[in-house]
Amino acid sequence: MHFAMLLFPGFEALDVFGPLEVLNVLSERKQIYLSLLASSLTPVSTQSPDPAARRAGSICAQEVLPTGTFADYLQDARAPDGVKGNIDVLVVPGGAGTRYPHAIDPVIEFVRGIAPPVKYIMSVCNGAGVLARAGVLDGRRATTNKMLWGQTTALRGEVRWVRDARWVADGNVWTSSGVSAGIDMMLAFVRETYGEDLASGIAQEIEYVWDREEDGTRDPFATAAL
Amino acid sequence: MHFAMLLFPGFEALDVFGPLEVLNVLSERKQIYLSLLASSLTPVSTQSPDPAARRAGSICAQEVLPTGTFADYLQDARAPDGVKGNIDVLVVPGGAGTRYPHAIDPVIEFVRGIAPPVKYIMSVCNGAGVLARAGVLDGRRATTNKMLWGQTTALRGEVRWVRDARWVADGNVWTSSGVSAGIDMMLAFVRETYGEDLASGIAQEIEYVWDREEDGTRDPFATAAL
Repeated sequence: MHFAMLLFPGFEALDVFGPLEVLNVLSERKQIYLSLLASSLTPVSTQSPDPAARRAGSICAQEVLPTGTFADYLQDARAPDGVKGNIDVLVVPGGAGTRYPHAIDPVIEFVRGIAPPVKYIMSVCNGAGVLARAGVLDGRRATTNKMLWGQTTALRGEVRWVRDARWVADGNVWTSSGVSAGIDMMLAFVRETYGEDLASGIAQEIEYVWDREEDGTRDPFATAAL
Repeated sequence: MHFAMLLFPGFEALDVFGPLEVLNVLSERKQIYLSLLASSLTPVSTQSPDPAARRAGSICAQEVLPTGTFADYLQDARAPDGVKGNIDVLVVPGGAGTRYPHAIDPVIEFVRGIAPPVKYIMSVCNGAGVLARAGVLDGRRATTNKMLWGQTTALRGEVRWVRDARWVADGNVWTSSGVSAGIDMMLAFVRETYGEDLASGIAQEIEYVWDREEDGTRDPFATAAL
């Protein structure tokens, strides 16, 4: 199974590395393939493009290396001789970068270009706003993080936003609530795909208190930021 | 406040990026400085050096860029003209790499070389075994992850290992249980350093169900893997 995590400047670190921790452990038991895709092969930083984020004068960022580019992937996928490396599960994280066109527009364009052949599309946190803007969530039930609820859900009225949810699976589209909720969602996806024992075993190994409710409809943060 | 996260081949992704997510949010409110230190400036991979980890035939790893090297840091810190960039909080993650001398010996050597002037030393998961081997935990109360409890605690008998703990703070040495517990520990450290409101606010923002018990002595995983 081929997973692809999309990266962009100002991605939220745990939106990416929570689900990837689950996949890293999974990868020792099941054959999976992970791509980290970005606009270019330049390392991608968590540094927020938002000047307000720098007001405290901190220097605190992490840079991750992509394994491929959006353009190269699309070219490979469209090659007449086959479906080299077709993505099964596309994961879009959130982060402050989602509010900056130069950071996020290439991601939206890529999601639009690739959505149909992908088996599953997922978002973490306000990555749901990226899927919404790409039109992927139209008519779907979906959730997003609670602190930015108003501004993210306002991006697209055609989505059936569900506030009280740690994650929502509507067909092949999975969305999670804020940051840490991406871990719960990915564990639920592992459960659906590979079974309860493997998902529970991974939660145990990473000592994560997984909200394992069947359908994700419980969210301790749903009312907190109203 | 200067935080330094140590990286080595085969580090556990969430051991690093759980605490760093907390610091990334903190960095927008308080002035902090983060170093990511490794043996060299070459990107450091989560790929386990353990051949058994590759048995499933997966390709699933992430590479992170260090911001400095162990050697350069020690040279700067020892310069007669000052304390350029002295580390306040040193964080050592765990991971499969801790079992491979070529991966972990430079980390142990660095911890030994730098421990005295550092204000706080922390570990996540079986990073506690690295601190133990460096002699930093002798006579201290400390915890580590539960799945590898036997082999990690066997590394050093001089440590007062505490099994039933999500994290343990003994003076300036903080250790956490497995993987996700590093998030709980870092939130507790933010609480001690900057106050309850800031720590709770960060937990809320990252929608993490923080085990906020005062002293960390509650661990849902303590009995599971006995």
